[in-house]
Amino acid sequence: MTYGIIGTGAIGGYYGARMARAGHDVHFLLHSDYDHVREHGLQVYSHEGDFHLEHPHIYKDTHAMPRCDVVFVGLKTNNNHLLPQLLPPLLHAGTLVLLIQNGIGVEADVQRMLPDVRLVAGLAFICSAKTEPGVVRHQFYGSINIGNYSCPDTALVDHLVDELREAGIEANLVDYQTARWRKAVWNMPFNGMTVALHCQTRDLMTQPDSRRIIWEQMMEVCRAAQALGVEGVDEPFAQKMMQMTDDMVPYSPSMRLDWDHRRPMEIEYLYTRPLQLAREAGQPMPRLEMLEAELRFISQRR
Amino acid sequence: MTYGIIGTGAIGGYYGARMARAGHDVHFLLHSDYDHVREHGLQVYSHEGDFHLEHPHIYKDTHAMPRCDVVFVGLKTNNNHLLPQLLPPLLHAGTLVLLIQNGIGVEADVQRMLPDVRLVAGLAFICSAKTEPGVVRHQFYGSINIGNYSCPDTALVDHLVDELREAGIEANLVDYQTARWRKAVWNMPFNGMTVALHCQTRDLMTQPDSRRIIWEQMMEVCRAAQALGVEGVDEPFAQKMMQMTDDMVPYSPSMRLDWDHRRPMEIEYLYTRPLQLAREAGQPMPRLEMLEAELRFISQRR
Repeated sequence: MTYGIIGTGAIGGYYGARMARAGHDVHFLLHSDYDHVREHGLQVYSHEGDFHLEHPHIYKDTHAMPRCDVVFVGLKTNNNHLLPQLLPPLLHAGTLVLLIQNGIGVEADVQRMLPDVRLVAGLAFICSAKTEPGVVRHQFYGSINIGNYSCPDTALVDHLVDELREAGIEANLVDYQTARWRKAVWNMPFNGMTVALHCQTRDLMTQPDSRRIIWEQMMEVCRAAQALGVEGVDEPFAQKMMQMTDDMVPYSPSMRLDWDHRRPMEIEYLYTRPLQLAREAGQPMPRLEMLEAELRFISQRR
Repeated sequence: MTYGIIGTGAIGGYYGARMARAGHDVHFLLHSDYDHVREHGLQVYSHEGDFHLEHPHIYKDTHAMPRCDVVFVGLKTNNNHLLPQLLPPLLHAGTLVLLIQNGIGVEADVQRMLPDVRLVAGLAFICSAKTEPGVVRHQFYGSINIGNYSCPDTALVDHLVDELREAGIEANLVDYQTARWRKAVWNMPFNGMTVALHCQTRDLMTQPDSRRIIWEQMMEVCRAAQALGVEGVDEPFAQKMMQMTDDMVPYSPSMRLDWDHRRPMEIEYLYTRPLQLAREAGQPMPRLEMLEAELRFISQRR
């Protein structure tokens, strides 16, 4: 299959480069570092092995890109309003669009903007960062959970999972709702708390009060997911997330990096949408509502 | 009646000086600015009129102080463990001890340390600060609510209220529990949130997300107080607190001032105790529990 990458950053850049290294025909949309990559190629530093793409297919404008069988969207959700312009040139009737993005409600909004597109959610469990032009640093983890949102051709989704695995990426097909809400169990506490308290994950795990609050926030997400009828988002899973975070090096989640680099934070899909769904299901998340308010406050004051 | 003042700061210094100016026999315990006050007296700048006490009765050690009919305690609650040493020299069998302090559970703990003492709570609605040695700046408000905790001689408490009023202080006798919990309706949201979000009261009132959270925190206090059977701590009262804060100049509550001056914050009585009582009553305050955790986290990290 041919692949298009919208948003060649820490996420889209990493997964796209892995597919290209595996021999697939991959087409990258680049923005600020187009000239740099044309000259120097794309460099991936990874704990699974560094590699370099000498002459990747790169573009400044999606109108110059070919139609692809699969498109990875690695944009920040704050830029999703650009998708109705960016995506159509890459689409044929059967194109699968994989949204590798954070939060809850992303697929619903993109589907509203592009009703005919076949959407699949990609939940990346990865620590990576684009630290300089043309350079992706993959620090650890790297698996991706795939949840089918609106693709009637399930064989095509299976095929994508197979091709990801053949490229050396740990890919798993999972229930869409379970995947999104499981990700929220980690994302909602750690993204906001590292910003609100100017710290990293390790700090929150070692101080007993913040550790307790992180756990209580995880339980809020589990109770909300259960009220919404989502399966597999429960205390044992939250315990695994605690254990995983204990085992991680001190880490700054994407929202903390956005804050540090004075980029807009993804408050809407990481907090506002799931909080609203939880309220509608009669299971509000008061601690996370307070965290959202704190984030909006400090974001507006900057 | 004769008066002793333990903690001649923003609160004890102000109310004590008002009583001395009214002609009462007032004895002040001073610490760091004893020498300054001996030389220059005690200066009060107040929106109700500035005044100066040329030669107040001042002491460095409570063992040198006379026994008094009323003792005002204006210490920070973090120093209440000193009271078993500080208080006894000032006490006769009928001495009334007025704890003009923040939080919930203060009287219970002091009573445990000094079982025979007659305790009365003083809830000061005042904006004042000790800005330099021997100088108290009284910015606005100034009323004090008096709640009888353990004084069997109610006539004595009435007498105190009368003498405060005669000295020009707006004093009201109120139900002890109502007084403490009403104060918490304002104290719990604003003290912690101005620290957690590095701001003043006005900022919290004007930004819509923080304003909503302040209101929801006030409602948590009201519901907890109601679960504990405390009367008069309800939505209409919270609305009055919102209105009062809207009408105030931008203000830094005592915890924010403590934080700014690198003094310990009064987390224990302002948060931990009322949160524990609320949990025991089956009406936890999740947003304020989270705020407490944030305060402990940032306090320990400093």
